[in-house]
Amino acid sequence: MDDFGLLNPAWAGTRAAELTSDSAFGQAMLDVESAWCRAQIRFGTAPATIDDAVAAASHIGDYDLGAIASQTPDGANALIPLLSALRDNVSAHQKAAAQYVHRGATSQDIIDTALMLVASRAGEHILTNMKTAVRQLSAMATEHAHTVMIGRSLDQHAQPITFGYRVSQWVEALGSAGQHFETVVDNLPLQWGGAVGTSTWWVDYFKADQPEADPMELVNRQRDLLAQELNLVSAPVWHANRVPVLQLGQTAFQVTAAAAKLANDVLTSVQAENAELTEPTKPGRGGSSAMPHKNNPVLSIRLKHAAQEASGQLNTLQTGVISNTAERADGGWHTEWSALRGLLRLTGAVSEILVELTDGLEVHAKAMRHNLGIHGNAVFLGRLTQWLAPIVEAHGAAEPGSGKRLVESISTTAMANDDDLAQALVAQLPDGVVTVKAVEKMLDPSGYTGGAASIVAEVHSRYRKWSS
Amino acid sequence: MDDFGLLNPAWAGTRAAELTSDSAFGQAMLDVESAWCRAQIRFGTAPATIDDAVAAASHIGDYDLGAIASQTPDGANALIPLLSALRDNVSAHQKAAAQYVHRGATSQDIIDTALMLVASRAGEHILTNMKTAVRQLSAMATEHAHTVMIGRSLDQHAQPITFGYRVSQWVEALGSAGQHFETVVDNLPLQWGGAVGTSTWWVDYFKADQPEADPMELVNRQRDLLAQELNLVSAPVWHANRVPVLQLGQTAFQVTAAAAKLANDVLTSVQAENAELTEPTKPGRGGSSAMPHKNNPVLSIRLKHAAQEASGQLNTLQTGVISNTAERADGGWHTEWSALRGLLRLTGAVSEILVELTDGLEVHAKAMRHNLGIHGNAVFLGRLTQWLAPIVEAHGAAEPGSGKRLVESISTTAMANDDDLAQALVAQLPDGVVTVKAVEKMLDPSGYTGGAASIVAEVHSRYRKWSS
Amino acid sequence: MDDFGLLNPAWAGTRAAELTSDSAFGQAMLDVESAWCRAQIRFGTAPATIDDAVAAASHIGDYDLGAIASQTPDGANALIPLLSALRDNVSAHQKAAAQYVHRGATSQDIIDTALMLVASRAGEHILTNMKTAVRQLSAMATEHAHTVMIGRSLDQHAQPITFGYRVSQWVEALGSAGQHFETVVDNLPLQWGGAVGTSTWWVDYFKADQPEADPMELVNRQRDLLAQELNLVSAPVWHANRVPVLQLGQTAFQVTAAAAKLANDVLTSVQAENAELTEPTKPGRGGSSAMPHKNNPVLSIRLKHAAQEASGQLNTLQTGVISNTAERADGGWHTEWSALRGLLRLTGAVSEILVELTDGLEVHAKAMRHNLGIHGNAVFLGRLTQWLAPIVEAHGAAEPGSGKRLVESISTTAMANDDDLAQALVAQLPDGVVTVKAVEKMLDPSGYTGGAASIVAEVHSRYRKWSS
Amino acid sequence: MDDFGLLNPAWAGTRAAELTSDSAFGQAMLDVESAWCRAQIRFGTAPATIDDAVAAASHIGDYDLGAIASQTPDGANALIPLLSALRDNVSAHQKAAAQYVHRGATSQDIIDTALMLVASRAGEHILTNMKTAVRQLSAMATEHAHTVMIGRSLDQHAQPITFGYRVSQWVEALGSAGQHFETVVDNLPLQWGGAVGTSTWWVDYFKADQPEADPMELVNRQRDLLAQELNLVSAPVWHANRVPVLQLGQTAFQVTAAAAKLANDVLTSVQAENAELTEPTKPGRGGSSAMPHKNNPVLSIRLKHAAQEASGQLNTLQTGVISNTAERADGGWHTEWSALRGLLRLTGAVSEILVELTDGLEVHAKAMRHNLGIHGNAVFLGRLTQWLAPIVEAHGAAEPGSGKRLVESISTTAMANDDDLAQALVAQLPDGVVTVKAVEKMLDPSGYTGGAASIVAEVHSRYRKWSS
Repeated sequence: MDDFGLLNPAWAGTRAAELTSDSAFGQAMLDVESAWCRAQIRFGTAPATIDDAVAAASHIGDYDLGAIASQTPDGANALIPLLSALRDNVSAHQKAAAQYVHRGATSQDIIDTALMLVASRAGEHILTNMKTAVRQLSAMATEHAHTVMIGRSLDQHAQPITFGYRVSQWVEALGSAGQHFETVVDNLPLQWGGAVGTSTWWVDYFKADQPEADPMELVNRQRDLLAQELNLVSAPVWHANRVPVLQLGQTAFQVTAAAAKLANDVLTSVQAENAELTEPTKPGRGGSSAMPHKNNPVLSIRLKHAAQEASGQLNTLQTGVISNTAERADGGWHTEWSALRGLLRLTGAVSEILVELTDGLEVHAKAMRHNLGIHGNAVFLGRLTQWLAPIVEAHGAAEPGSGKRLVESISTTAMANDDDLAQALVAQLPDGVVTVKAVEKMLDPSGYTGGAASIVAEVHSRYRKWSS
Repeated sequence: MDDFGLLNPAWAGTRAAELTSDSAFGQAMLDVESAWCRAQIRFGTAPATIDDAVAAASHIGDYDLGAIASQTPDGANALIPLLSALRDNVSAHQKAAAQYVHRGATSQDIIDTALMLVASRAGEHILTNMKTAVRQLSAMATEHAHTVMIGRSLDQHAQPITFGYRVSQWVEALGSAGQHFETVVDNLPLQWGGAVGTSTWWVDYFKADQPEADPMELVNRQRDLLAQELNLVSAPVWHANRVPVLQLGQTAFQVTAAAAKLANDVLTSVQAENAELTEPTKPGRGGSSAMPHKNNPVLSIRLKHAAQEASGQLNTLQTGVISNTAERADGGWHTEWSALRGLLRLTGAVSEILVELTDGLEVHAKAMRHNLGIHGNAVFLGRLTQWLAPIVEAHGAAEPGSGKRLVESISTTAMANDDDLAQALVAQLPDGVVTVKAVEKMLDPSGYTGGAASIVAEVHSRYRKWSS
Repeated sequence: MDDFGLLNPAWAGTRAAELTSDSAFGQAMLDVESAWCRAQIRFGTAPATIDDAVAAASHIGDYDLGAIASQTPDGANALIPLLSALRDNVSAHQKAAAQYVHRGATSQDIIDTALMLVASRAGEHILTNMKTAVRQLSAMATEHAHTVMIGRSLDQHAQPITFGYRVSQWVEALGSAGQHFETVVDNLPLQWGGAVGTSTWWVDYFKADQPEADPMELVNRQRDLLAQELNLVSAPVWHANRVPVLQLGQTAFQVTAAAAKLANDVLTSVQAENAELTEPTKPGRGGSSAMPHKNNPVLSIRLKHAAQEASGQLNTLQTGVISNTAERADGGWHTEWSALRGLLRLTGAVSEILVELTDGLEVHAKAMRHNLGIHGNAVFLGRLTQWLAPIVEAHGAAEPGSGKRLVESISTTAMANDDDLAQALVAQLPDGVVTVKAVEKMLDPSGYTGGAASIVAEVHSRYRKWSS
Repeated sequence: MDDFGLLNPAWAGTRAAELTSDSAFGQAMLDVESAWCRAQIRFGTAPATIDDAVAAASHIGDYDLGAIASQTPDGANALIPLLSALRDNVSAHQKAAAQYVHRGATSQDIIDTALMLVASRAGEHILTNMKTAVRQLSAMATEHAHTVMIGRSLDQHAQPITFGYRVSQWVEALGSAGQHFETVVDNLPLQWGGAVGTSTWWVDYFKADQPEADPMELVNRQRDLLAQELNLVSAPVWHANRVPVLQLGQTAFQVTAAAAKLANDVLTSVQAENAELTEPTKPGRGGSSAMPHKNNPVLSIRLKHAAQEASGQLNTLQTGVISNTAERADGGWHTEWSALRGLLRLTGAVSEILVELTDGLEVHAKAMRHNLGIHGNAVFLGRLTQWLAPIVEAHGAAEPGSGKRLVESISTTAMANDDDLAQALVAQLPDGVVTVKAVEKMLDPSGYTGGAASIVAEVHSRYRKWSS
């Protein structure tokens, strides 16, 4: 039994899928076990001579993962059968070495730490991609800081914005989510505590070996070496504290959620009626022979789909975490694993898709300008009254407080009759109140984007260093 | 990249995992395509001579699933690359045959129908197991219809029940959930409608071929043949109506949810302090060499874990379904697939675990009786007052309405002093009101299980036929 | 502390909110308690003289719900303080009557049954609305059975459909979901079993009262009377079997999910660039003074939002159900309540919104036709080759098997050059192969909707009786 | 229609419910509007004379929330009707003042900011409680740093721990979650951007008013004043970036998830068979008149229930966030509101319950010691072989590498026969290998808790300052 991703277009064929595969997880478990042997050697509790045997036995390609999977249910984890095979393998290289493998450790130490290793490796991949995507988007925002389009609120035309401004909000979301995720990835904790988290085996060992010393100080120092070997943080035991796992999953989800917003916007914009954006194409992607006009927005579809699945995976993780019990949970812990892997895999795939999508997204400024005009001058009415009402009142053309009503009345009538709005206002207001040119300036969308360009610059400067 | 189940103790190594693997789904897609060729042959729209070529090309083992997975993202589904390979393969057998493959169909027809085929095959497996489990539990309930234990409410001792009664509630939940699921599995719908669900290709075909006929009648008759070939219901097109998928996922979840309740009860009962139940053991399962007293309840842990993950998968499915759009959704549809597969896989694994767990669950009647006694006679106080208060009042030993208070007062004092309750009542109530024997009868838990045995028989009779 | 719906635009101000309010739930609890007194009277276990006192005390308006809420945490349910107040209230009317209130019952009996009563009342409201909405939509589908628009797949133009066909898929989804929900609502179960579900109190009572009878038969007959009083099904006890609650919540969600699909489609169609539909307007709704062109699609927004929240509520319900334990759960049961109420409330609001939306939805056939033309003849290319390729080959204008390529080549070149497609084909194919008129017939979208109208009629006939 | 919490034992009657009520949210909206008037006064864009009128109109108690709720669906938000009433109210105090209310703002500015205000106020309450709870737990951990109990893994006895160690893990989880939440609460962002987030109204205003200045600089400076008034961070606009809301909800959930672990442990421990802990009691709470021995663990039940519901609320929030679109979402935004409020309310209730539970939790050291002995010496077998195997081998009593097997063999036989383990080992091993006293020392659980006490001290020092 094995799965390849046929039902998972979000991540099938991605590098992220490889980095989070069962094989990658299996390798991570072997990496933890072998690092522990090296830590013992460095601390002087194991002989240096075992190093070669352990290293030689630590290639996941040499293990039958299908067989290990089939034994996984017996102890409800994969480490038990893998460890048994590892010990046999080490023994075959050097009989005396096997006793040092997994010494004083428990399944949870290895599984939790291996998942953190997987997170670390996938995390690096994700962050590299996120920075590239943010950089590309930031350049796109800058390029289009003044490309006018209509801003949409509740699916309705609201006021003009610039495409750069919209992109800046994607940058802000992806950038801040990426930074939150990075903080967590930079602090992934080692798990190391033995059967119930209290390091009994090693406390007994050091009590016997160095009776005068504080055994936990030795335990902690030896653990620091392991953390160094694995490039993880030498954290206090968290067997019974699942906040680290929850926080990791949550911040990964922030990234996919931020990407989903971008995808939703692209999916609206690529519709034939809207046509403001086109996804990058490549041979063989997104087309349909029976429907040659189709350019399916598969990148955005995959982003949207990834976020929907990630939300469910995070939900699973939450359910697992809140049902934890005692020193090791009776199901809640087991529930965390594939949910966390799923979140890392999906986030990794999202990061890859983002790099591709943000590199080649085509922007159709002309369509943006066209769509902006659909409602004619209606989108400027608010602006017009804000500007003209006090002028009208100052000229005595309307009672104080009723200028707004007058301007609106003239304008809506003109628009309903398809009259030229500027000329209608000039004609119906007393001489000298307003000129056609002045009205037309107010009806120019390029002057009605408020702080759009300023916000683009601000966002750009906020993420420039991080993403470079 | 492939996964085997190392992070999924719930289903690793199960038959359900095989029945829902990528390979099984790929085979189901091939089965749909080849059945469609046979339906055309039967309807006279394709020559019988293509049958062999199509059949010869329809073995999933001949396809490179890894390669197909890597092409899956391009069109956001696996059918596109598989179909391309299938056509090549058919062509290699018989050049002329390839044109009949997938004729007038669309990706969604194949994928939706293939998932229904997977559901049908997994569903049969699940239902066979569920009936076995319900049968075994029903026998257990009958055997223990009078095995007294304490009933627990909000984690506190409430009133005595019998173990058979508790089991009967498991039966009721599993049996009703199983029947709901069965109704859905027995009515799994074919999906067949072409690009936008209106069968345009075939309507055009039949209009040209049999201009005098109602083309949709021919379309429907040809579709009926396909449904027959696949043993699915020849339902109206549901491209844009995802209620069938939702309902399938929901009823599968009912099964895993019912199993989780059973698992939660077992997990409490196997704790050393409670010790009322023991999970069946087998060599290599659930033990720990470092902790020989351990018999980890891995079957129940896997059931609990499966339900937690299934809840997240159903959540994903829900999110997909509510984001569907137009004639084919932009992500929501894609989200359904692996969630539905996950639900079927987990439910299948649950059904296998249930068969094993309910076959060998050990019941410790002595521990049940012991635990029932922990609070002494306190659990009988309500019964005592219900019975004795009217008698006391009838004898004039208390004012009308105050008999309850008197009985409670004597009883709680006796219990607090560890006095014999029956003797205390006889001593402190007027002569002739009550006898030691009569009180002791009221304090016998085996007489205080209400309709427990009657309920066991009722439940048994409700599911006897279904589960046999 | 009270909430009115300020943060809940989905249901604020709806009838559904009233039917599921705390007050409605409180009334339902009183209704269960008073019905139980009436059932006792009818069965002869309580005197008829208590009826007036109980009835007089059963108006929720006479109780201080704020005070009862503040006592709710003490026993983790609201029945305990309400029952205490009810008994005082009954006593005040007739001292002797209070003892019959809640006799032999437990909190869970009252709360579960009261929730089923709320479901029954809300369910009736929902079903009435659903039938109206389905009826209105069915009429809309019939009216627009031939109104041509483009069918959309993955956000891209696919093939022409008719608007009636799209609506027929809404009908199918809403109708089938409504029927699933109706089946559950028509079979809502009474909960009645006493402390641990075994009716111990009444078994003891009847054993003493009618020693010769089967006490459970009497219990069941008395329970039947209660079910009659409440118009619920006299089901076996389900204290420890939460499948009924899960199934109720699941089928309610089917309704909101089906409505969400409709809403998603409307939300795309009301966008200014698409403009195929307009939501019904009413004074004060959906407008914006600063943006007079806005007609916010608030009905569809509320539907979409309702489904998103309902998915979370169902998730909560699932989490509660899978954590149930023993004879009454330690939290899982409590989690069910407001989730179930939320699902009923949201589904009720959805049903009200659907009635309004489907009554006044404006259809812009002209815009539909316009949008269909955006890609010109590209959407007909598949049809053209299906029809013309065999003709071309039959005329010897192309080798067998290469007709398709020839037709596509001529057509795509013509389209790229903005040439008239029919004339290009006539010009470039040998004389007599094809006529302009014949090509133009193939390019007429109204002839290219396959079985759309037939499907509309089929769906209409399937739900006509149910919805009338 | 109003709700009080009858179906919500988790939060009914809590201070958190008040701080997050509709009334509190309504007050927060008024607070934002009035602070905006003050900010204008301070910036010189509004006259100081309006202050009194605005202040006088800003008491939520003067508004009819039921009526506002019933108008909420029309614009799909409550601000629209509230603002209308506020303007009327301000006008009634001072006609000229009303024009300054909400000037240049949009509904989303007010609603998002008001929710942040509610979060700020609830957040302060939550953090105060969390620090108290952590402080109390930390003291409990210290007091019981050496109170021996059995550690449990997968529901089975594993190795001894101390109760203080278990509590230290609660502290670690609650403390770290609390700190994550605090970081977010300390940085809650103001939302201020006008219709599409670009501050067009004010940019136009300042362009006219101070043509020489950079209008966005003025906009930002005026916004800073508003942030000061509200004690929020003057953040860049986040209309279209929902990461801040997601992160707030996620960290709140971390707190409830950490509390759920504690609750799960308490719920196991209060079971009659385990009896290691008792929840604090108070008159009227958790008891049952019919079952006087019951002390329902309602505090832990409410914590468990709260986490289950919070997980669903967070799921709703996620679903809303990933469906956001354009400059203001069509449903996704609306979905966030009550989900975020629910998370804050539940977390607030959790914090109150934690204070009470951790203040009065009774610890039964004797029961802990008793339960630890259930498996006799079996839990020491690992320790025994770790210690004795090398000694046995060193004495030549076993071949190198087979000492473990010998020790295990003697020990398991002795345990199976109920023989004294120390004497069996002394008797069956060669003279001088081991003494009864030495074995008994290894069988003393108080010496077998590894670094438990050290970890307690470490955790205590980590959270001492934060929680004091």
